Amino acid sequence: MSYFDAASAAPLHPVARQALLAALDEGWADPARLYREGRRARLLLDAAREAAAEAVGCRADELVFTSSGTRAVHSGIAGVLAGRRRVGRHLIVSAVEHSSVLHAADVHQADGGTLTQVAVDRTGAVDPSAYAAELRQDTALACLQSANHEVGTEQPVADVADACREAGVPLLVDAAQSIGWGPIGGGWSVLTASAHKWGGPPGVGLLVVRKGVRFAAQGPADERESGRAPGFENLPAIVAAAASLRAVRAEAAQEAVRLRELTERIRTRVPRLVPDVEVVGDPERRLPGVVTFSCLYVDGETLLHELDRAGFSVSSGSSCTSSTLTPSHVLRAMGVLSEGNVRVSLPFGAAAEDVERFLEVLPGAVAGVREKLGAPAAETVVRDDVLVVDSLGRRCPIPVIELAKVIGDVPVGGTVRVLSDDEAARLDIPAWCEMRGQEYVGEEPADRGSAYVVRRLS
Amino acid sequence: MSYFDAASAAPLHPVARQALLAALDEGWADPARLYREGRRARLLLDAAREAAAEAVGCRADELVFTSSGTRAVHSGIAGVLAGRRRVGRHLIVSAVEHSSVLHAADVHQADGGTLTQVAVDRTGAVDPSAYAAELRQDTALACLQSANHEVGTEQPVADVADACREAGVPLLVDAAQSIGWGPIGGGWSVLTASAHKWGGPPGVGLLVVRKGVRFAAQGPADERESGRAPGFENLPAIVAAAASLRAVRAEAAQEAVRLRELTERIRTRVPRLVPDVEVVGDPERRLPGVVTFSCLYVDGETLLHELDRAGFSVSSGSSCTSSTLTPSHVLRAMGVLSEGNVRVSLPFGAAAEDVERFLEVLPGAVAGVREKLGAPAAETVVRDDVLVVDSLGRRCPIPVIELAKVIGDVPVGGTVRVLSDDEAARLDIPAWCEMRGQEYVGEEPADRGSAYVVRRLS
Repeated sequence: MSYFDAASAAPLHPVARQALLAALDEGWADPARLYREGRRARLLLDAAREAAAEAVGCRADELVFTSSGTRAVHSGIAGVLAGRRRVGRHLIVSAVEHSSVLHAADVHQADGGTLTQVAVDRTGAVDPSAYAAELRQDTALACLQSANHEVGTEQPVADVADACREAGVPLLVDAAQSIGWGPIGGGWSVLTASAHKWGGPPGVGLLVVRKGVRFAAQGPADERESGRAPGFENLPAIVAAAASLRAVRAEAAQEAVRLRELTERIRTRVPRLVPDVEVVGDPERRLPGVVTFSCLYVDGETLLHELDRAGFSVSSGSSCTSSTLTPSHVLRAMGVLSEGNVRVSLPFGAAAEDVERFLEVLPGAVAGVREKLGAPAAETVVRDDVLVVDSLGRRCPIPVIELAKVIGDVPVGGTVRVLSDDEAARLDIPAWCEMRGQEYVGEEPADRGSAYVVRRLS
Repeated sequence: MSYFDAASAAPLHPVARQALLAALDEGWADPARLYREGRRARLLLDAAREAAAEAVGCRADELVFTSSGTRAVHSGIAGVLAGRRRVGRHLIVSAVEHSSVLHAADVHQADGGTLTQVAVDRTGAVDPSAYAAELRQDTALACLQSANHEVGTEQPVADVADACREAGVPLLVDAAQSIGWGPIGGGWSVLTASAHKWGGPPGVGLLVVRKGVRFAAQGPADERESGRAPGFENLPAIVAAAASLRAVRAEAAQEAVRLRELTERIRTRVPRLVPDVEVVGDPERRLPGVVTFSCLYVDGETLLHELDRAGFSVSSGSSCTSSTLTPSHVLRAMGVLSEGNVRVSLPFGAAAEDVERFLEVLPGAVAGVREKLGAPAAETVVRDDVLVVDSLGRRCPIPVIELAKVIGDVPVGGTVRVLSDDEAARLDIPAWCEMRGQEYVGEEPADRGSAYVVRRLS
């Protein structure tokens, strides 16, 4: 059993467990009360806030505990947008933010606000000057993650923060994936994080709002957590979150080196072990424990299932997994292959031998899936030098498999039209062309779905 | 050490602790994932939902877990108001709802909605026919607590639910104080509750929305918990919440009889042991473990401090406690004395000998506070048969103490004018008149604060 999905949720750190147990006994009472149990709870809450603030690098009175990272993001974005409403209603996000940021942006747009999504390059990073160019007179808030949750790419937060500062626009940094590794540099204004990503318990997020940032908490009033996080404080979990953040930080420098070496093994060896693989994300500027790759001609859900049977728990941004029929917005924004996508995110303490075993198991698992999928017959029609592949009603990776099977049947210079109504084809057919040195001509509307036109170059 | 503030937060039930520990090991992964840790987490979540739904008396797919009772109330009210916006924008609440309900109502009003607060009688209960009379064509939602959190009075939920059903208006029941004791009868439509009130951990609320109720979740989209509670599920706490609800229910019938007898001791003996005390709340239709009384000529915060020193943790709805300068809205709505207010709420398993010790300690504690406060000299001026007491700048209970000291100085039929700028005087001077058989003539504006006019009758 190797759990390689720490970017979704990290197993509870032993320190978090200890602290939680102690706080269940000491910290169950209402910290707003004046009697001794309440005062004791208040002391624990204050100490947790001090510890978390020290780890974040902020003042204790700038930090509140929310009920999740998602809540921190929702409240942080809504609060700044409302606080700076007089300045304007323009919001900037990167195209690869966590869904909690994008969904908050959707609400803003539905409410009449304007939104700019800053594109990313093929590694998943924004370009700081491109980001800066979107800052306007009426920009109320800019958002940028510290590092991407699907591919591990670190964003140029300090540079973007400088540009924001110069423009007088607050920058909200979603630090969920990286705060366990160290504080976020640069002059950010608002920061959010989630304890269960660093080995703390679920039920705790951080929302930090720097002094001087105009902030108007939205929703019904509540006196707790400076009015920014309504509801009775989840004190045992807060205590555990703060204690475990301190604990993982103490081990972070050493563990980062170790995990980086392990993910580097995967980055370099998977393409050698498995044909037709694209490793995605920045090879250098990345989280220590995350590595993501996509496998041509493979359906992500089946591959995850095979890996699970072999004892590996990993995640995927492919379509056809976990009840979604579209590839992850991150892979789409990067313009990389989404089929057969696998994210390996190693938890603290992941064993080298487990990574080695993963590298042993993976080639066979991919080959098995490909073998199963390789069989389906395609209905192909050759008209002059145009070959039409009808993949309507077939899900990824079938359209790409059909394309690969027939490309040799047209002469060099001839074209293949792949008919598909699968959302993933829009991303994966161009990605296949790039990997195979063929020309992607474009997408044309069809009676059902689209026709994806590919010209054979070699 | 006797903790008598279970209505604020109950100590963790042993079953909750056990379940939490087990779920920390088994349920830390993301229940939306397909690998084995995720599937295991999903099974735990499903089982917890089934258990909670069975205890509530609803279908499992009607119940979601929120991050607190407050969040359940906020989301429940906002969701029904939005879902029924076409019907109208009229909201009904009782005057003694929990602040989370009243604050959600404030947001609705600020947003242009209309609001009716249904008054309560001196016991704190609404009159079902008075409540029903407020139901209108454009009423989107009606809210009524199952029992009051400050005085323990049970509300006529089933009767109000019948009236709502007849009018086609959904009724939201805040069941935070009573769900541990048993399911809520009657045809309610939406129900909210909070785990830490029944001995579960903090960080878990329940939001139940009956099938057929129009509901439109507000705020950014999120796929978890049917889209009604964004953020990563706090699974260990959810498991503990469901397990402890089942456990307290198994003990509820027997424990209710025991606690009811203990609070009855307080109800009957405090007025005999302590002079000038008003026990508030319904003597019969009430929560088993809650009893509330107010002591004339006593400042609530000082009394709480004295009781804390004697080893008793209780709460108060008096002004001048916990950073608030106004008496609780519940005591105000009931029109009862607020000064020297004490709420005793016994946790499961509270010991009879601790209650006895409380009854031993209380008279001395009250007498001590009264002695300290009895001394202050009043500046009094007699003009004809009108005596003016200047209590400007003095906080409760001083204005009432001054009044009591001088009432004998005017002839029968003469009046005393108490000048006060303390908010509590508005409630406590009429309450004193009622307790003492004097006539409360009314309040008149003054240069500073108000003049409260009292006529001596005997």
